[in-house]
Amino acid sequence: MIVEVLNTGTELLLGNVVNSHVAYFGQALFPLGLRIARQTTVPDGAAIRNGLIEAFDRCEVLLVTGGLGPTTDDLARELCAELLGLRLVADDEILRQIQERCARRGFAFQERMRRQTMVPEGATVMPNAHGTAPGLYLPALERPSSRTPHIFLLPGPPCELKPMFETYVLPRLRELADGENVAQCRVYRCVGIGESMVESRIGLRLSNMDGLEIGYCARPNEVDFRLIGSPELLDELEPQILAELGEFIVSQDGANLEEVVVAKLRELGRTLATAESCTGGLLAHRITNVPGASEIFGAGWVTYANEIKTAELGVDAALIAKHGAVSEPVARGMAEGAREQADADYALATTGIAGPGGGTDEKPVGTVFLALAEREGPTMVWREFFPTDRETFKQLATQSALNALRKRLDS
Amino acid sequence: MIVEVLNTGTELLLGNVVNSHVAYFGQALFPLGLRIARQTTVPDGAAIRNGLIEAFDRCEVLLVTGGLGPTTDDLARELCAELLGLRLVADDEILRQIQERCARRGFAFQERMRRQTMVPEGATVMPNAHGTAPGLYLPALERPSSRTPHIFLLPGPPCELKPMFETYVLPRLRELADGENVAQCRVYRCVGIGESMVESRIGLRLSNMDGLEIGYCARPNEVDFRLIGSPELLDELEPQILAELGEFIVSQDGANLEEVVVAKLRELGRTLATAESCTGGLLAHRITNVPGASEIFGAGWVTYANEIKTAELGVDAALIAKHGAVSEPVARGMAEGAREQADADYALATTGIAGPGGGTDEKPVGTVFLALAEREGPTMVWREFFPTDRETFKQLATQSALNALRKRLDS
Repeated sequence: MIVEVLNTGTELLLGNVVNSHVAYFGQALFPLGLRIARQTTVPDGAAIRNGLIEAFDRCEVLLVTGGLGPTTDDLARELCAELLGLRLVADDEILRQIQERCARRGFAFQERMRRQTMVPEGATVMPNAHGTAPGLYLPALERPSSRTPHIFLLPGPPCELKPMFETYVLPRLRELADGENVAQCRVYRCVGIGESMVESRIGLRLSNMDGLEIGYCARPNEVDFRLIGSPELLDELEPQILAELGEFIVSQDGANLEEVVVAKLRELGRTLATAESCTGGLLAHRITNVPGASEIFGAGWVTYANEIKTAELGVDAALIAKHGAVSEPVARGMAEGAREQADADYALATTGIAGPGGGTDEKPVGTVFLALAEREGPTMVWREFFPTDRETFKQLATQSALNALRKRLDS
Repeated sequence: MIVEVLNTGTELLLGNVVNSHVAYFGQALFPLGLRIARQTTVPDGAAIRNGLIEAFDRCEVLLVTGGLGPTTDDLARELCAELLGLRLVADDEILRQIQERCARRGFAFQERMRRQTMVPEGATVMPNAHGTAPGLYLPALERPSSRTPHIFLLPGPPCELKPMFETYVLPRLRELADGENVAQCRVYRCVGIGESMVESRIGLRLSNMDGLEIGYCARPNEVDFRLIGSPELLDELEPQILAELGEFIVSQDGANLEEVVVAKLRELGRTLATAESCTGGLLAHRITNVPGASEIFGAGWVTYANEIKTAELGVDAALIAKHGAVSEPVARGMAEGAREQADADYALATTGIAGPGGGTDEKPVGTVFLALAEREGPTMVWREFFPTDRETFKQLATQSALNALRKRLDS
């Protein structure tokens, strides 16, 4: 079954917004044996018409996002009805829900919102629990002269789209996909090894194998080695892959490093604290993005200023004066101080120069010292160099910190 | 000049990776008077061929991302050369750079990397400062039977693509775009008001105005009201817009809330501390994403555990026992404690229930108390309710906190 995605929205092409829908759809469809064959973004307005006409020709399922709002540039509903030759009819139940929602949230009902109550004949309404624009499902039409795909019109904001997709679209797609060939996708997420090295260690040996599809995806200090095939084949290949990549593999199910670390700590009944300078809270943020993090994470410090490193974590001011805040002894002191203050089993610390300013010849922008302290055993301190932009630097430094803890917990 | 983007990569459609290139290109092109007319994603392999052929027909500039890596699924370079009828020639200088890069980073040179040294005849090589795959620029070809666009082949990883784009692609596009009609885009970023309300307050009055293009884009607790037109027209309309939306407007240049708050604090010479429970470091992370944040931000606490709220911020344990950690007095205590400990001018605090677990009838998942303490003057505490997923909740709560501080600094 050929699935396409049509994203509408001038803001996506102007760059005011990053399109997160495609990745979300892709992940949700795969377990049904479905993949996105093509994704297109067009601006609001008339371009939506061409996007729809072309996609009607190529695909059997079309997911359309955006263009359902109350404002004048929202045309997806009207254009779809027009192209399919369907009349738009006002729906009283939608009107009631929108009015109720406005009352509950303390907003005034706007006459413009009436457009959102219009439904093409034959369409199924998908209620919006998090906004005013309902979604619409238009089943495939077989006509003597033409065929149209199953069309799902979905709201643009991800917090409205996602619950609607899960509640109404996925079950429908599961029915439609019935009988599709469900291959398995296994993603070996590796940290601490490059893409070429993954290929030369194992990828080349597996290329050209019947019934196996191989892919690679590189991110900052992370490579996904992706295999798609029958569960039996993937099981058969697994020992070879573990033998070659074992120490680098963080997960085999798409779990990210913070999810793996939090799960491992919960399993072991251990706790973690963080002391961040250059990563400025990202380490704590990544950890607390994982549901259940509160079981293993009680305290984090963002000690940007030197005096705060001393006052809060007990880092000797003389050490800072002698070695500088970005140094081996300060990273060590931060980790040990945080571990002790939080009475945690482990603590991670970061101190470095994120840039763009602040570098020196000896410690250029991108330099970072990391430390892992533990209740029983010596503190580990290591130096890394990530000369890149500020946000990637923060990502790489937290990646290095979390990966060190992962390896420690595995050992 | 018609510009299209072709993103290649199975991982984008499987959802292992979010496509951030489109937004990046869109923002970079607009100041040149250029916009992306259409963006398409196709999987690796043969589908790239169709994507290229169709785009050749429609556009004058084509930006292609991905498919330049060393692995077998990277076909963009080879397919482009084939479709354009250009021979691939090995480039010794690229080989030297790749070998040098490997040596510097301590990686072994892989024979597979030789593919990356192949250059189509007539192409200009764009060196890659952050990876092994060089980019390629293929100027437009005018042939009796066909015309092809200016083609830029760029590597997939954003940290490799962005510096290359800025150094080599943008200057070339600026030349090509010479004489394009440069309109101005003004984005009034509003917090604390809904999309419909923005339209009814001001948007409708401006719709159907000659030479003016209006757009809206809603995000969690944020609406962009976008006007595109001549600088004169935009200046003329500005007083009306400020009169209607003034108090809600965070920025007019695309700056986000944290950038505005950090800039304002720097301007005033004031400092900020943070005390986070439910937002788990995101508030500090957002603030420290802004270059120069260290001037105004010295200390942040992530006090997830109750004992840590007491030990680190001096929140009375009896208050926590009586009112619960998610309560007005605890938010107040956290903010005041953090401000005092950090000796800062302001402190923001968050305590709430991010979910999915932990809700009660009285305080359901999504409840959050926020506080803003200041050196001179009373602490402000407010309650919000954001019943949504964990990550959106964290985003909304930090949005509310930062917006309160923004308004305080403006008053």
